[in-house]
Amino acid sequence: MEEKATLASLSPYVPGKPIADVQAEYGLEKVIKLASNENPFGSSKKVQAALAKSLDNLEYYPDGGAKALKKAIADFNGVSEEQLIVGSGLDDVIQIISRAILSDGDEIIVADPTFSQYELHAVVEGANVIKVPVDSETGTIDLQQMLAAITDSTKIIWLCNPNNPTGTYLPQAEIIDFLAQVPRDVLVISDEAYQEYVTIEAVSTSLDLLPKYSNLIVMRTFSKAYGLAALRIGYAIVSERFKRPFEIVRLPFNTSTLAQIAAIEALGDQAFIEETVRTNALELKKWEVFLTDSQVDFYLSQANFIFFDTKQDSRKLAEQLMRRGYIVRAGLREGWLRVTIGYPEDNQKLREILSNIW
Amino acid sequence: MEEKATLASLSPYVPGKPIADVQAEYGLEKVIKLASNENPFGSSKKVQAALAKSLDNLEYYPDGGAKALKKAIADFNGVSEEQLIVGSGLDDVIQIISRAILSDGDEIIVADPTFSQYELHAVVEGANVIKVPVDSETGTIDLQQMLAAITDSTKIIWLCNPNNPTGTYLPQAEIIDFLAQVPRDVLVISDEAYQEYVTIEAVSTSLDLLPKYSNLIVMRTFSKAYGLAALRIGYAIVSERFKRPFEIVRLPFNTSTLAQIAAIEALGDQAFIEETVRTNALELKKWEVFLTDSQVDFYLSQANFIFFDTKQDSRKLAEQLMRRGYIVRAGLREGWLRVTIGYPEDNQKLREILSNIW
Repeated sequence: MEEKATLASLSPYVPGKPIADVQAEYGLEKVIKLASNENPFGSSKKVQAALAKSLDNLEYYPDGGAKALKKAIADFNGVSEEQLIVGSGLDDVIQIISRAILSDGDEIIVADPTFSQYELHAVVEGANVIKVPVDSETGTIDLQQMLAAITDSTKIIWLCNPNNPTGTYLPQAEIIDFLAQVPRDVLVISDEAYQEYVTIEAVSTSLDLLPKYSNLIVMRTFSKAYGLAALRIGYAIVSERFKRPFEIVRLPFNTSTLAQIAAIEALGDQAFIEETVRTNALELKKWEVFLTDSQVDFYLSQANFIFFDTKQDSRKLAEQLMRRGYIVRAGLREGWLRVTIGYPEDNQKLREILSNIW
Repeated sequence: MEEKATLASLSPYVPGKPIADVQAEYGLEKVIKLASNENPFGSSKKVQAALAKSLDNLEYYPDGGAKALKKAIADFNGVSEEQLIVGSGLDDVIQIISRAILSDGDEIIVADPTFSQYELHAVVEGANVIKVPVDSETGTIDLQQMLAAITDSTKIIWLCNPNNPTGTYLPQAEIIDFLAQVPRDVLVISDEAYQEYVTIEAVSTSLDLLPKYSNLIVMRTFSKAYGLAALRIGYAIVSERFKRPFEIVRLPFNTSTLAQIAAIEALGDQAFIEETVRTNALELKKWEVFLTDSQVDFYLSQANFIFFDTKQDSRKLAEQLMRRGYIVRAGLREGWLRVTIGYPEDNQKLREILSNIW
């Protein structure tokens, strides 16, 4: 009995320590998690109220077609329900797309660094991963180098926008220019998990481009600004010609009933999102000022996290911060840390701790 | 842009009609769904109470390692936490196993008919599916023919026990005899989604065999007797040597926080399961008597459904029953229907309707 050959180079995901474990291990009363880009303001109060009324009938399978949720998403985004693939978080959507499209010898193009799951699923499917370094000065995804990397074997280009972990954003004009140059048989996937946080331009969406480019896929999630990571729900907006393969590999009941209900409610409370985004932008500014004052290199973020160069062993620094009750993310690039934008008072305290260390 | 070649012969899953849609379409006040083997008694009241207290902090990612749930499952089954793979329902577990093990040209062996997802995932991975018909008289999985079908390419033998849709059960003695003859490099997967319903023997589990056969995997779910299908949670008990490949392809946060909490509570209320199983066995008996009296062929079931030969177009019959407010499952075998064991009064009413039609 052997595992599939493509798994040889891969390792199981090592989850971060749960808050309770960190509390116990370091004897801390309070631990602030700024490691997974979760919303410090939680989620809409309407979600909780709706879920509280939906705790019976759990014996029934979910609506596998997620009809009511698709209607809400379609209305919200001005797209057709037929264009939607709903997944158990974007990890699930990335798996669905990769498993439906990629085979041995295919290629995908990703930024380096970017979200790790694009690569994982490509490797499982036997595809080769072409990594294009982000601009070292600005941290921005290098679209010109991506274009240059396209070959006859290229099947998918993954654009995480804003990019995790750099936080950098590709404006719509550059995406338009890029799409015009990508062959129509190469999928361009815009993973917009952090799209709600973008404030740099009013048109912060590639949705408008979908009718023109049937090789464009846009992904959105309820795990970040909407604050529903616990429930696992996200979606992709795709050309109808991709519905068939994606629906074949999508598990028939991949999203739970409660996740579907929560997502509908969350979408209906845009005031919560506006407040989340407004506060995030203000807090991000304070981080930029602090890091500039500290003469620390960082990338301009349009997301709910900031990525900076600690000029030291960032794993050790993360460990030091953990002892003081702050969980942040090291290990994404040598020497760099990714810190989620948390509550104003927690951000302030963390900056004070950092300036005492530096 | 092309989909993966292995998808060519497959079709997207067509979900059954939701109760609300059937009500609207046929103008019915009450609709009873006996199509998906859901527990008519719902789930433990303790689940609802625990979930009601867990509706805050939804912004945090779930514990990807499902530590607390694994501890509860390990304690309950007398196995090690290290042997457990938790999935978003058994569909997810079947996907994980198939994706980690199967490649182009491999073979799997399944009963015919059996649960459809084993075949689907094998085909997606490029594996060949060898179908061994169940005994036509008894509906039992034919283990001798399965042994005879093993080749050098065989990677997995899927045993659904009790088998869906036949409901038939393979006693432990036969499983022991079978395992002794299966080469050790062939995985034998005992999908025990309906195991709680088995009353024919006290030792209704293959768990005892796990220490002796490292090529044995046992799957269990919270979707059936535990009544938590809406939440998507199930698990596999595997030899530690399989942890690595399965953990690589398992999505890092594949099960929701609420599903983990619900499963722990559900496991703790065995009184609910006992009542569920006791009633099911009594109701199953009434169906057997009715079908015998009606001179209708059926298979002896150890599950929460019964499979019988209508000797007519069973899709048309299912449609007739839907008009009268009963959703049942046709299309699994020409002329046959699968009916979930529901509430005593609903079962009685459905039998009355059937005897009026017959």
